[in-house]
Amino acid sequence: MASQEIDALAQALSKLPGLGPRSARRVVLHLMKKRESVMQPLLRALENVNERLVTCENCGNIDTVTPCGICADPRRDSRSICVIEDVSDLWALERSRLFPGTFHVLGGKLSALDGVRPEDLNIDALVTRVAAGGIDEVVLAMNATLEGQTTAHYLAERLESYPIRLTQLAHGVPVGGELDYLDDGTLAQALRARRPVG
Amino acid sequence: MASQEIDALAQALSKLPGLGPRSARRVVLHLMKKRESVMQPLLRALENVNERLVTCENCGNIDTVTPCGICADPRRDSRSICVIEDVSDLWALERSRLFPGTFHVLGGKLSALDGVRPEDLNIDALVTRVAAGGIDEVVLAMNATLEGQTTAHYLAERLESYPIRLTQLAHGVPVGGELDYLDDGTLAQALRARRPVG
Repeated sequence: MASQEIDALAQALSKLPGLGPRSARRVVLHLMKKRESVMQPLLRALENVNERLVTCENCGNIDTVTPCGICADPRRDSRSICVIEDVSDLWALERSRLFPGTFHVLGGKLSALDGVRPEDLNIDALVTRVAAGGIDEVVLAMNATLEGQTTAHYLAERLESYPIRLTQLAHGVPVGGELDYLDDGTLAQALRARRPVG
Repeated sequence: MASQEIDALAQALSKLPGLGPRSARRVVLHLMKKRESVMQPLLRALENVNERLVTCENCGNIDTVTPCGICADPRRDSRSICVIEDVSDLWALERSRLFPGTFHVLGGKLSALDGVRPEDLNIDALVTRVAAGGIDEVVLAMNATLEGQTTAHYLAERLESYPIRLTQLAHGVPVGGELDYLDDGTLAQALRARRPVG
């Protein structure tokens, strides 16, 4: 449509999640119109991230420093580790600001279908962290999917010989959820884990 | 949520059309995971475009060369000019491959509300192109909005003294449109411009 360079930019943008060829073109036009206020800040931000991106040697989080901001923060409780599948899960938990401990990012989940074996995930580093001592609790916060739960079972086996508290996220009715729309699995879990009122 | 640099990238992305804070975070995670295959190509494409972006001195199109690819193309019919409001309109017409002539991008539309006056648009350059001679037809392809049509009327007045054919896009029922859903204005235009069958 336009020059090769502009076309290449539209192509590169259309590969981002949530953008297709049409919205990528719209983004290119926007960038070209607002060169100083949008394109150049974006370019600088991308350069900065691209230059400095590293995987935290301790927990597997992706950050611009290693150890990452969370591992290096002295206010975090380093005696509890929350194990998650992906950096996106870490961000979701960090947004809620509910977990005061540190994290361990597996970088995926065990999957026979996709051929993901334990040695493909960041599991040995977790066992090493736990074996080194000083850890009270490991929260297995995998996704509540079949593969997530398989991964949690595997981790529970690997960690059972260490003197730590192994916990997992509660299953149940999500806040704001209506029973009528819930699947049977969630309802069953919520009923099984029912608690006394008050 | 993460380091300052990653936050800044999410911020810059969330300012693009079609992306909000949530989808910008998703894009950042995708970029970080696919550094080689997505982030670096995008960075290079942005750098290329940012370095070379120029406004065509002839027609106002934004390209990486001036005169732009269309103005410089000897296969284009330089005797007819299609005047459009914006580069996005030029791309839309180019995708249809229906117009064999050249373009003239106004860079906006006259608007009393937004304080856009004739001297704020790329109009003098159009009059200069027409006055220089060698032009047979000028197609006024403004949007069919009040402001677009005001701009078209103004251009028609500015160009009426030159020996050219002044035309505008036809109004009517869009292909695939159902009468029941059309506004009265479009229906009225379609009825007024009715043609003999066959």
